[in-house]
Amino acid sequence: MKRIEILRQSCLDKGFDGFLVANEINILYFSGAPGASCLLVPDGGESILYVYGVNYEQVKAEAKGFRVELVKREENLMAKVAEHVRALGIRRLAFDTLNVESYRAISRKLRGAAKLKPQGSIVWSLRRIKDMDELELMRRAAELACEGMKTAQEVLRPGMMEYEVAAEIEYAMRNKGSWGTAFETIVASGARSAYPHGGCVDRKIQAGDLVVIDIGASYRHYRSDMTRTFVAGEPSSKQKQLYELVKLAQEKAIKAIKPGVKASDVDAAARSVIEKAGYGENFVHGLGHGVGLEVHEPPTISPQSMDKLESGNVVTIEPGIYLVGFGGIRIEDMVLVSEFNAEKLTDDFYGLEA
Amino acid sequence: MKRIEILRQSCLDKGFDGFLVANEINILYFSGAPGASCLLVPDGGESILYVYGVNYEQVKAEAKGFRVELVKREENLMAKVAEHVRALGIRRLAFDTLNVESYRAISRKLRGAAKLKPQGSIVWSLRRIKDMDELELMRRAAELACEGMKTAQEVLRPGMMEYEVAAEIEYAMRNKGSWGTAFETIVASGARSAYPHGGCVDRKIQAGDLVVIDIGASYRHYRSDMTRTFVAGEPSSKQKQLYELVKLAQEKAIKAIKPGVKASDVDAAARSVIEKAGYGENFVHGLGHGVGLEVHEPPTISPQSMDKLESGNVVTIEPGIYLVGFGGIRIEDMVLVSEFNAEKLTDDFYGLEA
Repeated sequence: MKRIEILRQSCLDKGFDGFLVANEINILYFSGAPGASCLLVPDGGESILYVYGVNYEQVKAEAKGFRVELVKREENLMAKVAEHVRALGIRRLAFDTLNVESYRAISRKLRGAAKLKPQGSIVWSLRRIKDMDELELMRRAAELACEGMKTAQEVLRPGMMEYEVAAEIEYAMRNKGSWGTAFETIVASGARSAYPHGGCVDRKIQAGDLVVIDIGASYRHYRSDMTRTFVAGEPSSKQKQLYELVKLAQEKAIKAIKPGVKASDVDAAARSVIEKAGYGENFVHGLGHGVGLEVHEPPTISPQSMDKLESGNVVTIEPGIYLVGFGGIRIEDMVLVSEFNAEKLTDDFYGLEA
Repeated sequence: MKRIEILRQSCLDKGFDGFLVANEINILYFSGAPGASCLLVPDGGESILYVYGVNYEQVKAEAKGFRVELVKREENLMAKVAEHVRALGIRRLAFDTLNVESYRAISRKLRGAAKLKPQGSIVWSLRRIKDMDELELMRRAAELACEGMKTAQEVLRPGMMEYEVAAEIEYAMRNKGSWGTAFETIVASGARSAYPHGGCVDRKIQAGDLVVIDIGASYRHYRSDMTRTFVAGEPSSKQKQLYELVKLAQEKAIKAIKPGVKASDVDAAARSVIEKAGYGENFVHGLGHGVGLEVHEPPTISPQSMDKLESGNVVTIEPGIYLVGFGGIRIEDMVLVSEFNAEKLTDDFYGLEA
């Protein structure tokens, strides 16, 4: 309910007297329950959750302090919302996101009774600053990812299939209490490790292969994200050298983090280390991203980002070097931006050797 | 490439001389590789895949027979596509789906050189009919789900946490070769089994609980979907009675399947069994949906559906009864609609007792 109050205040500040939340993760953020199709927040009184029959009983049981409206199969959701907007006398309605069809449908039904305006950034300005409740869940999700990663390091050996390594990682996370994976587990080995989104396939890991392992757990809807790179067997001197370079780039970036810093400057702190070593072209992605209810959220940490980091952001810092044919190396941790420094939520253990 | 040719022919039939594929799963369907951001199919010559640096090398290696264009970080994707549309002389460009921002961006850059029209149904008319290659992968994904379900029945017992059951299921599917789960595993026990989308949480399963287990594997990007309901311990007579009712409803629906049948009639075949027994209000969702690269695809099998089933569709048939406080029962199988009948792709084993 505190989140609803902050949303109301933000609306008021911008001259809106109502907010329509249509994105399912935003609805989860405000209501605490998954499964509703829309949330209407007027400037006073009860907020309304719109729920189809399939999820109605669950939302009624799990979302406290809301009016829960059943949407029948034959009803039109946007028509129902528009009817309430008119009845509540809302005149300036902000919304987070709507597809073209829904936007047209609600506009038609409102017949000019209220002005509609996209204001997705209002919700993001809340979601990007994690509160104490969220941080507790994110710490747990991060711990679960660490459990998975320790298991990966323990079991990884030449001759295993990539999916067998994933099996052990996910089994460890689940048995420690994970609600699921935060995204599709990546175990990309050999030449495939040079693909940042290499997934996890039926390939047998060979001695000397680089193996990029990028995993996340979820806990009560909050997600984690963490990468380590191992060598199955004895690392070569080139593998070691590149690994140390990526590790140094990550350290430099984490040291650059403080409230108010430009995200592009944090990216540059890591990227310049890799560029100076001659691998700038091989760091083919941004340095990091926010994490929370989704695995990719604002702020974005990249050369083009216009974001600034703020206390309460949880972001990944994940430099990488990818060489076609040779393989890739990435090290990724989740970091909480706090008043004076950056706190790693994922363990500080390293090691190229599995 | 055969799929590209069918797409071209469909465009030609409808008077288009180009198709822009923007949905990532549609791009995967046509190119065989994940990771591209757009696919432009002119009426002749090479098709173009647009790929950001992070996925460039992977797409180049995995997508055969395409021109692969690198999109640089500072480039605008839609501007680049528009430039090629103009250079290729495309005048009537169909597309699958675009959000409002992308639609506006490409329209602006085209400056009237080509007319843009949404034609997502062209792609769905292809994707809903599975070809032999797809069916082989879907059979494998279905087998993997069955392996998970057998494991669930073997391990389930009172005192386990829901997530521990999920751990065993997912471990079994992974070790048999699954590339991942098709969606978030559901292990919903006790009163939570009355929530069709109950997920899997930190709840201890009690003796006599109904446990709805809804799982899927993925294999080479194709997904499966299967549900069984078990009782942890000895089932009560009411649990047995409801179970037999849901099973009968499913059998009636599967018998009603043949090419050309209305999806709403298949829904009615199951729903009427449940309605006659007085539980119509407790069957709170549609009977089923298509499955393929996504876990929810057309056709839809529900009372409101306007779809007809065709040979080559793969659909779920999943009646359920949900009683608040008591629990829920759902039985779901994946079915291939073929020339003369309906073939179950998920095993025929049943059993309420775990």
